[in-house]
Amino acid sequence: MGTRLGELVERFGGQLVGNPNLEVQGIAPLDSADASHISFLSNSKLRALAGQSRAAALIVAPMDDTTVAATYEGTRIVTTNPYAYFARVAQYFAALDETPPAPGVHPSAVVHDSASIDPSAHIGPNVTVEAGAVVKAGAIIDAGCFVGREAEIGEETHLFANVTFHARCRIGKRGILHSGAVIGTDGFGFAKENGVYIKIPQTGRVLLGDDVDVGANTTIDRGALADTIIEDGVKLDNQIQIGHNCHIGANTAMAGCVGVAGSARIGKNCTFGGAAMVLGHLEIADNVHISSGSMVSRSVLEPGQYTGFYPLAKNAEWEKSAAIVRNLSSMREKIRTLEKQIKNLTDNAEQK
Amino acid sequence: MGTRLGELVERFGGQLVGNPNLEVQGIAPLDSADASHISFLSNSKLRALAGQSRAAALIVAPMDDTTVAATYEGTRIVTTNPYAYFARVAQYFAALDETPPAPGVHPSAVVHDSASIDPSAHIGPNVTVEAGAVVKAGAIIDAGCFVGREAEIGEETHLFANVTFHARCRIGKRGILHSGAVIGTDGFGFAKENGVYIKIPQTGRVLLGDDVDVGANTTIDRGALADTIIEDGVKLDNQIQIGHNCHIGANTAMAGCVGVAGSARIGKNCTFGGAAMVLGHLEIADNVHISSGSMVSRSVLEPGQYTGFYPLAKNAEWEKSAAIVRNLSSMREKIRTLEKQIKNLTDNAEQK
Amino acid sequence: MGTRLGELVERFGGQLVGNPNLEVQGIAPLDSADASHISFLSNSKLRALAGQSRAAALIVAPMDDTTVAATYEGTRIVTTNPYAYFARVAQYFAALDETPPAPGVHPSAVVHDSASIDPSAHIGPNVTVEAGAVVKAGAIIDAGCFVGREAEIGEETHLFANVTFHARCRIGKRGILHSGAVIGTDGFGFAKENGVYIKIPQTGRVLLGDDVDVGANTTIDRGALADTIIEDGVKLDNQIQIGHNCHIGANTAMAGCVGVAGSARIGKNCTFGGAAMVLGHLEIADNVHISSGSMVSRSVLEPGQYTGFYPLAKNAEWEKSAAIVRNLSSMREKIRTLEKQIKNLTDNAEQK
Repeated sequence: MGTRLGELVERFGGQLVGNPNLEVQGIAPLDSADASHISFLSNSKLRALAGQSRAAALIVAPMDDTTVAATYEGTRIVTTNPYAYFARVAQYFAALDETPPAPGVHPSAVVHDSASIDPSAHIGPNVTVEAGAVVKAGAIIDAGCFVGREAEIGEETHLFANVTFHARCRIGKRGILHSGAVIGTDGFGFAKENGVYIKIPQTGRVLLGDDVDVGANTTIDRGALADTIIEDGVKLDNQIQIGHNCHIGANTAMAGCVGVAGSARIGKNCTFGGAAMVLGHLEIADNVHISSGSMVSRSVLEPGQYTGFYPLAKNAEWEKSAAIVRNLSSMREKIRTLEKQIKNLTDNAEQK
Repeated sequence: MGTRLGELVERFGGQLVGNPNLEVQGIAPLDSADASHISFLSNSKLRALAGQSRAAALIVAPMDDTTVAATYEGTRIVTTNPYAYFARVAQYFAALDETPPAPGVHPSAVVHDSASIDPSAHIGPNVTVEAGAVVKAGAIIDAGCFVGREAEIGEETHLFANVTFHARCRIGKRGILHSGAVIGTDGFGFAKENGVYIKIPQTGRVLLGDDVDVGANTTIDRGALADTIIEDGVKLDNQIQIGHNCHIGANTAMAGCVGVAGSARIGKNCTFGGAAMVLGHLEIADNVHISSGSMVSRSVLEPGQYTGFYPLAKNAEWEKSAAIVRNLSSMREKIRTLEKQIKNLTDNAEQK
Repeated sequence: MGTRLGELVERFGGQLVGNPNLEVQGIAPLDSADASHISFLSNSKLRALAGQSRAAALIVAPMDDTTVAATYEGTRIVTTNPYAYFARVAQYFAALDETPPAPGVHPSAVVHDSASIDPSAHIGPNVTVEAGAVVKAGAIIDAGCFVGREAEIGEETHLFANVTFHARCRIGKRGILHSGAVIGTDGFGFAKENGVYIKIPQTGRVLLGDDVDVGANTTIDRGALADTIIEDGVKLDNQIQIGHNCHIGANTAMAGCVGVAGSARIGKNCTFGGAAMVLGHLEIADNVHISSGSMVSRSVLEPGQYTGFYPLAKNAEWEKSAAIVRNLSSMREKIRTLEKQIKNLTDNAEQK
């Protein structure tokens, strides 16, 4: 039941130092791995720990290999990015443990006659697929999902249980939508007249690229007239809200509870810490990194790390500081007064 | 397949200047409209753009009409609120594109014998409607929704797929509940005894008025003993949390990710920016506007705009400022000391 | 149809002063109770109101009893924690009003042959239960829920409609999972290589203890390799996000919209106000209380109350203060300059 180290290297590359016929059953962290595991060293600070590992094999970077090899007697796979290698090996072992769901449509699912379901796709129990929807090869739609009219689910994309995917929206290949995610709900658009809101119909779509992950209970609004765009490789964690007409660039990642108001335009390769918030109609350049809990209230046009949250303190200290924050302008006035008084005193002193 | 401009004016009012028999196929923004569209000018700053529009017709305000007419040769509809007019025309065209779901109960839906479903209502696939629930004329309950015991769904109200509407709660006419919304879940109420929480049953309801919209994955708690009240015309965006026993006044609007703790009493015609938070048992007057990302930690009894979030900065600058914020009280002490020293110096100088 | 006061005392303890054969129909607050109700005094400040209550009976603490008895003529139940007593009596009356769902599996539910459903459990309409799952005695799984492979639902635990409970996760006895909650979704774990994210499979579980409540649309991530642990008696409100590999100690409570990033280790008996956020890999001791809207960006190892949010102000005042916050370091520089100038002035004055 084990996997030969030689097979791992054939699949994922790297330089094998040791016995290719040694078999491992799985992957485990340095401190819990035993003789049935391969482990990995992704942080040079843990070299000493790695040197003492009981793992049958180790994934190490070239710069750490000499140090590790001095004390570690097992087999090594030397590769430039051990953490990425770990991810691939972990995927490999996880797939061995999983039984992929059988192709076909569960009898309890309600699939409209005009929907197109690839024979290799899986449609689970209590799913609803509406007219004209397309579910492509290898896609998995778990129990309780809803796929709206003319929506399109790409090859090998997986909708976990209870996802809602609205009419005419599209997702590309190898995407993952986690449970409770809602794609293509109406954006929040109203005209006000005589104190009453009149709904502006939201007729755009959400278009998600390839390799996009959307977390549990995350919501993405469809565009008002144009579309909301999520480019390839974007990773969204749970409980995120993306407003209508947003555009999120490729390989941008957002941690849980982030909110992005409508029409924000966010670049590629950005990261957003948890609960960061972005106001509407802002522009954020490529390679911008926003710290957790920060409110982005203006466009950020230069790459870099940006932060804005109030520091935590013992409650009594917070009460003092917060009271002063409210009156900072009077504090600045006092400083200006002091500056004038000192100038007068200095001038007087010099005259004497 | 087009619609005569004369017909739009008959339906929605306004003064037509030009050819009533001209037909348009839809509505589009100034910069993308062509000869098949009607467009609109809702922002006077865009007058020049409007004057050059390729749209077959324009919706304009009286104060902009002369300027626009100087260069624009198409037909105009002159009306006091072009944005509201746009919303209505957009609704009109969107309705033409939609096929309303057929009346009746889908065979896969589970509807209790004692529930009352109007023959004109639509109950989609995999829906559950419990005992004694009432679904009124023209209501639409999409796939996967749950309607609890003795709940009531008003005329023409639309529950999008996968909404949960709990027992005994009610919503009025023309409401929209978006996917994943949960209405009438238990409030968060416990008594603590010997370090352990004892649940306080939540026996109140949620009562939503007419024309209420609730966003995707928004949650509204039922009252503990009394009811949670959402008045007519309230518009809630996605991922909002409303605690038990809250009362939200008519035509108040909240953007995404807002949280309102229990028993808050919020007035009419308020607005809350995204991710604003309101503590429990507070009172907020009519016509209060809370900026995005603000924590409302005290009652707000005067109308106006209120704000409270930490300004965003480059991370290095934030680190400096945040360190000072933590020590603002020592900074105030230094200023007081300086004031005393200067007074001493001044007094001494005067004595000489 | 009423309940004898004597029966309440037999069930829940306390000292009865008055007529044990008096019957009450329910429990109500002091100001709305009438002769058919029992009421309670949990806040000594309301003694005067209690003395005038029209309730047939009152639950009071020993320290309030003499004052109340001076004017109140009804029957009293004297007990050390009237609020907890109220909670129990309210549960008792709420249970009388409820018809528990019938044991058995609804015909529309899809339950895998290898799942084990206790005959006393209730499986509602349109539920899906996958292979090897276990649903224990007295558990209630409402409409539209999903229970994944080999998941385990403990005795008398209640899943409200549309809960998603993923494969291999477990919850103990008497738990409550509210609608839209997602337990055991994948944690947010990726390795980055050449600018592209590679998913790290999340093979741990979520293990919830006994008496755990999870609010509507709350999400709890499964562990990456190890498990996410929620100990006995934890109470989570709505819209909370708990990251992978978190450990939350017994009887900790979190209000709505809280977010906890991955691998945070939180102690017992803590409380988190609404929208508080906790960064990843932090440690929080037992008995720590975090105020609403606070960002916990460092470990908190001492018990106590901690706070960190920007104070709300009229918008014009906020704009002034926020501008100064951004420049606090220049303000500190000015104070240092003033200190030096005063030192010079003072030194000069002394030399004269």
